[in-house]
Amino acid sequence: MAQAIKGNAVIGQSGGPTAVINQSLVGVIEAAAKADFIENILGAKHGVRGIINEQFIQLKGLDQDLLERVAQTPCSALGSTRDKPDEEYCRNIFKVFQKNNVRYFFYIGGNDSADAARIVSEMAQAQKYELCVFHVPKTIDNDLRLTDHCPGYGSAARFVASAIQGDDRDNASLPGVKIDIIMGRHAGWLTAASVLARRDENDGPHLVYVPEARLSRQKFIDDVAAVYGRLGRCVVAVSEGIEDENGVAWGEKIAKEAEHDSHGNVQLSGSGALGDFLAEMVKKDVAAKLGAKKLRVRADTLGYLQRSFAGYASPVDQAEARQCGRLAVQYASEGNPSGTVAMKRELGGGYKITYFRGELRDVARETKPLPKEFISAAGNNIEKAFVDYALPLVGELPVIGKLM
Amino acid sequence: MAQAIKGNAVIGQSGGPTAVINQSLVGVIEAAAKADFIENILGAKHGVRGIINEQFIQLKGLDQDLLERVAQTPCSALGSTRDKPDEEYCRNIFKVFQKNNVRYFFYIGGNDSADAARIVSEMAQAQKYELCVFHVPKTIDNDLRLTDHCPGYGSAARFVASAIQGDDRDNASLPGVKIDIIMGRHAGWLTAASVLARRDENDGPHLVYVPEARLSRQKFIDDVAAVYGRLGRCVVAVSEGIEDENGVAWGEKIAKEAEHDSHGNVQLSGSGALGDFLAEMVKKDVAAKLGAKKLRVRADTLGYLQRSFAGYASPVDQAEARQCGRLAVQYASEGNPSGTVAMKRELGGGYKITYFRGELRDVARETKPLPKEFISAAGNNIEKAFVDYALPLVGELPVIGKLM
Repeated sequence: MAQAIKGNAVIGQSGGPTAVINQSLVGVIEAAAKADFIENILGAKHGVRGIINEQFIQLKGLDQDLLERVAQTPCSALGSTRDKPDEEYCRNIFKVFQKNNVRYFFYIGGNDSADAARIVSEMAQAQKYELCVFHVPKTIDNDLRLTDHCPGYGSAARFVASAIQGDDRDNASLPGVKIDIIMGRHAGWLTAASVLARRDENDGPHLVYVPEARLSRQKFIDDVAAVYGRLGRCVVAVSEGIEDENGVAWGEKIAKEAEHDSHGNVQLSGSGALGDFLAEMVKKDVAAKLGAKKLRVRADTLGYLQRSFAGYASPVDQAEARQCGRLAVQYASEGNPSGTVAMKRELGGGYKITYFRGELRDVARETKPLPKEFISAAGNNIEKAFVDYALPLVGELPVIGKLM
Repeated sequence: MAQAIKGNAVIGQSGGPTAVINQSLVGVIEAAAKADFIENILGAKHGVRGIINEQFIQLKGLDQDLLERVAQTPCSALGSTRDKPDEEYCRNIFKVFQKNNVRYFFYIGGNDSADAARIVSEMAQAQKYELCVFHVPKTIDNDLRLTDHCPGYGSAARFVASAIQGDDRDNASLPGVKIDIIMGRHAGWLTAASVLARRDENDGPHLVYVPEARLSRQKFIDDVAAVYGRLGRCVVAVSEGIEDENGVAWGEKIAKEAEHDSHGNVQLSGSGALGDFLAEMVKKDVAAKLGAKKLRVRADTLGYLQRSFAGYASPVDQAEARQCGRLAVQYASEGNPSGTVAMKRELGGGYKITYFRGELRDVARETKPLPKEFISAAGNNIEKAFVDYALPLVGELPVIGKLM
């Protein structure tokens, strides 16, 4: 393998934060500090935006105690960005790298970040500028290709499972219909994690809707009425990105209906609109179907807490995110010009992960939906195979004891 | 003191659940199981409703391991109710007690439950039926009189503080205005707990609004614009029960404005309406005031997770809730005909609580607002005195480390 070239390293964080994105950051910093081929370790403020504006923080020689505290802290310690660099943006990144003798670029993010990394890497190769570009995966959505699962997902899944565990007990205490809106615009991985809350047969969530299975208004009403008729209560987990029978996102439909009133442009994340809409539907249509005068209906939108809640990350997720950061530097040290860090699950025996270097193009752009075999035939529940997949990622879940 | 009479005991749970209401339940069960004057220990399903319908669970002889698991489980293991018994309802309760030789009634709940307990106790005294009635305090709202603080509050406050800690890091990662709606219809205790999230001067929440300080639309806009102008971001903690300059709840105003569209009857809890309303206001009016084309604005309604989230209770709160349950039985064993369990904080030195028996009438009906000295003069922040009061109740909070 080629000798690693000496030069400076830039690290950036991108997209929606997670509870463990700083574990990956600290993993990169720790390994880079030990690598004799890396001179300065520069943290780009707010991802690629900080690069083109040359806003860097020196990350070499930081106190280990501070690094540990940073690793424990949710969200992006360097700041994040929603910028999705096009070719020209990438040229500007590349110019800054040349000017500052940056020879290593570690970008912690999702599929868009992998794509930006890929473009910058190809520019460097075309201009015969030695640059090593590594993507470190992160997303609570768990929708990156190539890797068995994504750092960030296990912690968000742990939060969702614990929230639904408690919420199901709340709903059993004061029965009614409870709707929980869970993040995931295009993929149902996080909503699926709600089923990890179940211990006994009649535990919630009783219905689970993901974007991968289309859901008509009538089916939703029939499903909720059936569960409520059977149990006298119903907990429903709904992805923010659910689509109707024609593949139109419910969120868009609500936005259209809202155009005529003061609500204007409806966004899904950071808004209670979808939950409130579904709650109104249950109050009217499910109550009518059941011949009930009044149903107790509540909706919660779990919101940004799913990715940012402090002090409740999955220990498995923390360790894996850290290791992904370290390995990006190791793969770079082995003379690889670019790549991503990916995880593979060993089959048989207990939960065991091996790591490997993947190509940027294999993780960039497209995403990975929840596989069909994880979704029940009726499209309103999640199969046991998903539980086997997801349970090892969340670490320990809360103890539950019941008297009735 | 009078000799305790032999008979059966009934335990019930009432009102909105908390993360530790089952700790109190298990405390009562444990102590009652050891009391030779208590024969059967009957759990009333769904509080007073279970009493008048004679739906009881036998709680004597339960496995200690099960009891421990129940104690760790959030929400009401016996089920809860929103019924507020009037005189006639209480007469029916009393009849069931007479019929079943119930001589001990332990009711875990808020001020309404204390009032129901008081009425039943007075009926028994008037009819010279020996009945011992004890209220065990619980509420995430922390608004009961007499006691220094309420079991249930510390855990909800811990959840809120950790949520805001993470949310502030999220807001620093992707700057904008973030609005968090926190439970508390009439009292700002839980919203005030958001300030426990702060570590450094510019940490959020940057603005805190409680029902005890009136808030005009203009003040809200001016406050947010001022913080955003200074820091380029702003995290706002808002009680669901905030009132305008005329003492009208914002929620009611929104409901009135919504009457003209499809939204109809707006409820505060279990709805994202207030958060969405405030977010729209910031997008329009704060952006206009700052001359900004577009502001990134998000709102989360923390919702039922505040009282029900599993696996994250405050250890201090858990221990105190358990002890309150045990002491209710002890006070009963000492021949007291009725009372509530209350906590007093010892001044000087570290955090130390002593327990005492209080009268039902002193905790029934009225509630305790957040004291004026805890609220800043400008009505948009919480004072250090509150932090000194609340910090010992939440237990350990997550570690935070920053790089910028």
